[in-house]
Amino acid sequence: MKRAKIVETDDINKNGEDEKHPNFIIPKLCSWMYDLKWATGTGGGMSVKHGDFIYMAPSGVQKEMIKSGEIFKCNSSGEVLEDAAGLKLTECAPLFMNAYLIRNAGAVLHSHSKDAVLASLVFKGKEFRISHQEMLKGIKKGSTNEPHKYIDTLIVPIVENVLYEKDLTRRMKKAIELYPESNAVLVRRHGVYIWGKNWQQAKTQAECYHYLFKLAVKLKQLGIEPDQTPAGEYGIAD
Amino acid sequence: MKRAKIVETDDINKNGEDEKHPNFIIPKLCSWMYDLKWATGTGGGMSVKHGDFIYMAPSGVQKEMIKSGEIFKCNSSGEVLEDAAGLKLTECAPLFMNAYLIRNAGAVLHSHSKDAVLASLVFKGKEFRISHQEMLKGIKKGSTNEPHKYIDTLIVPIVENVLYEKDLTRRMKKAIELYPESNAVLVRRHGVYIWGKNWQQAKTQAECYHYLFKLAVKLKQLGIEPDQTPAGEYGIAD
Amino acid sequence: MKRAKIVETDDINKNGEDEKHPNFIIPKLCSWMYDLKWATGTGGGMSVKHGDFIYMAPSGVQKEMIKSGEIFKCNSSGEVLEDAAGLKLTECAPLFMNAYLIRNAGAVLHSHSKDAVLASLVFKGKEFRISHQEMLKGIKKGSTNEPHKYIDTLIVPIVENVLYEKDLTRRMKKAIELYPESNAVLVRRHGVYIWGKNWQQAKTQAECYHYLFKLAVKLKQLGIEPDQTPAGEYGIAD
Amino acid sequence: MKRAKIVETDDINKNGEDEKHPNFIIPKLCSWMYDLKWATGTGGGMSVKHGDFIYMAPSGVQKEMIKSGEIFKCNSSGEVLEDAAGLKLTECAPLFMNAYLIRNAGAVLHSHSKDAVLASLVFKGKEFRISHQEMLKGIKKGSTNEPHKYIDTLIVPIVENVLYEKDLTRRMKKAIELYPESNAVLVRRHGVYIWGKNWQQAKTQAECYHYLFKLAVKLKQLGIEPDQTPAGEYGIAD
Repeated sequence: MKRAKIVETDDINKNGEDEKHPNFIIPKLCSWMYDLKWATGTGGGMSVKHGDFIYMAPSGVQKEMIKSGEIFKCNSSGEVLEDAAGLKLTECAPLFMNAYLIRNAGAVLHSHSKDAVLASLVFKGKEFRISHQEMLKGIKKGSTNEPHKYIDTLIVPIVENVLYEKDLTRRMKKAIELYPESNAVLVRRHGVYIWGKNWQQAKTQAECYHYLFKLAVKLKQLGIEPDQTPAGEYGIAD
Repeated sequence: MKRAKIVETDDINKNGEDEKHPNFIIPKLCSWMYDLKWATGTGGGMSVKHGDFIYMAPSGVQKEMIKSGEIFKCNSSGEVLEDAAGLKLTECAPLFMNAYLIRNAGAVLHSHSKDAVLASLVFKGKEFRISHQEMLKGIKKGSTNEPHKYIDTLIVPIVENVLYEKDLTRRMKKAIELYPESNAVLVRRHGVYIWGKNWQQAKTQAECYHYLFKLAVKLKQLGIEPDQTPAGEYGIAD
Repeated sequence: MKRAKIVETDDINKNGEDEKHPNFIIPKLCSWMYDLKWATGTGGGMSVKHGDFIYMAPSGVQKEMIKSGEIFKCNSSGEVLEDAAGLKLTECAPLFMNAYLIRNAGAVLHSHSKDAVLASLVFKGKEFRISHQEMLKGIKKGSTNEPHKYIDTLIVPIVENVLYEKDLTRRMKKAIELYPESNAVLVRRHGVYIWGKNWQQAKTQAECYHYLFKLAVKLKQLGIEPDQTPAGEYGIAD
Repeated sequence: MKRAKIVETDDINKNGEDEKHPNFIIPKLCSWMYDLKWATGTGGGMSVKHGDFIYMAPSGVQKEMIKSGEIFKCNSSGEVLEDAAGLKLTECAPLFMNAYLIRNAGAVLHSHSKDAVLASLVFKGKEFRISHQEMLKGIKKGSTNEPHKYIDTLIVPIVENVLYEKDLTRRMKKAIELYPESNAVLVRRHGVYIWGKNWQQAKTQAECYHYLFKLAVKLKQLGIEPDQTPAGEYGIAD
């Protein structure tokens, strides 16, 4: 596996284990998140559904070093079936469950990216908004699973942060219900939760969301409002 | 292969396949583009000509994970001869064909780099312009294949973006015809198409264009106009 | 080992050496610091305690190339027991000893990160201060080893730099004594010393501190005071 | 070899070649420069002295792909003794020779870093200047080979760029003679030449110079003059 890159293999390894199982995918995704600085300092989290079970990374560990034997197995209600010796379940668990239960997600990640934090601060209210960017197309609408159009306005709800991560559960649920098109919830001064129908979609949407967070902050610094309909732009047209 | 680095090998691999074939080069170039954040979130695209055939990456997939068996083979008019099972041809295909048909390109890439997007926004009109930069020399003039001089003004035409990528075809064609010296077309709020006589030149020119896009945005932020003839600069001279 | 990533192994290597020993961990951590640009140009330093002994990287060498045979072994007072042929002990030694002797650290690192330098310059006085950031939770309080709360203000003392690194010893000691909650001391226009109860905690805390240094500078540039209680932020709440 | 990292080996390889020879070191250094974006788009250059001979990378090639058989061998006057089939000697050759002949360098590199270009533009005159930075200590004074002190002002002469690289030779010579303490010459809107008594020192000094170029531009953006004696900074002192 290379830097910030996931390699999916079809192989059964020498111990007879399926490397497409979440026990192997989650460590790779955590390492990828670490490389992108979304999960340094033991921050961030990762979860993948597989059949009727939900798998989650442990809490408070160095995310780039997680091993296949350190993943928690939960049932579809989020109750731990198999824990990882000596480790604690991620505090993100009830937040991940929001996306599984309300939005039928197949994978959920939690990033502490500085770009997400800054995006939550250049927009002071309840919504991060950006429009007229090609990368919008990489993000599906929650209600229809159709991609956003270039001219759509992508809206990501922002919840205020709290002292204890589990206390975010109720307000994240509220945000998801208020914004059924969004596959992400920003947490101000904290980070972002992003999901998809499987880990591949969660990952690619996370790449698009983070791209747009970073771009929006840069646009603000250049005096361009990210959600404004373009005006005074006169490129070559038909 | 290391990060953001292409390794060209002369080897015939153990399956008797030529690793210099576009089926192998395109996945490497896509992975390199992913590492540079030009092709995250399934964005971006890559195409290489080889003999009478044109090879293209598939659409809507994770660009860093493309395998040699997933490349489309087209004839010199862009008609698909061999498709990749279960995959769709890139939506960039008609745009790539513009460069092949009008400019006799040997390879074309499409980047979603944030620097290209920002460059298309600090210049509001039909042209990105930069002058008096050494890195201009790494970019050839379309008409003569001679490199730009340090004192030349490099001009990259900018087309307005549209809802569907294929609808860019006509205006990209128009831009190419209006700007015969350019080996690139910026698409505002979207990215850039860049080509060369072969993949090596497409790649090195892409590096120079992206360097200049990033530099131009930084210069604007420092209050320096990228296309202005230097004034008030008094370094050591002869 | 991949970029900016530490791999801890349980293995005894083919020479019968324990790869968890500081002789192996320190080179890996130095290489990780180099990748993060905390230890380029021979700058920076690293030290780990193991049993009754303290191990330190050599001075003035390329930090990414240190080998297991090039680590100094000291007793718990910092006196060299085994030196590394042809090499000099790091000039950070008395500063590392401050953290070992006053704060019972298990590992100490010294970074020349530009973010640390800039953080020491956007705050002009004796303290770097930041509050209401989730990443505070990744940093323990010196007195209790309990994590900071989201609403706490993290304070890092700043000492003025001097001509010779050893002359920092007294003022770093003073800073540690004045700020018993801090696990770090910034040195203005120079860098930062960070420690933890073991190398893992020193590393993860270093990631959090550097994240917060970089974020604080960006916040200042956006006109947001890093240590101000949030006002006018109206995200979704309960 | 990992990203942006040089590994020096003592090994004689399986072909009986000494991997410490410039034929092996130069490709590694070029690849390292590419990773740092100092040598993208075929830009940049590298040269190492070994015994009585001077070895140089070829011109106009992808710097990250140079092979051991593609290095030019010159005598101590810079005359080519062995060329590399099908390749051209770097256009930097006469500029590299300046450092070898006037300053008795053991290795010289040429970087197109954007930070060097920007540093040459935030300082408009003949000199880049920075003071009161710890990283100054990583750079030797040309006259004495003693490191700069923290309170010294590091001065790098800036020459104006020209159309053809070889025409820089005379003014670079002038700059070297006017500034005997400097181990670097900036070329405005182009890049920088940096040397050392061997490749290790050229590399570590290059890391320090580039660190200071980047820092100086950021300081200017924060309203801090890089060469100003600190005022109003009141950290903890003795």
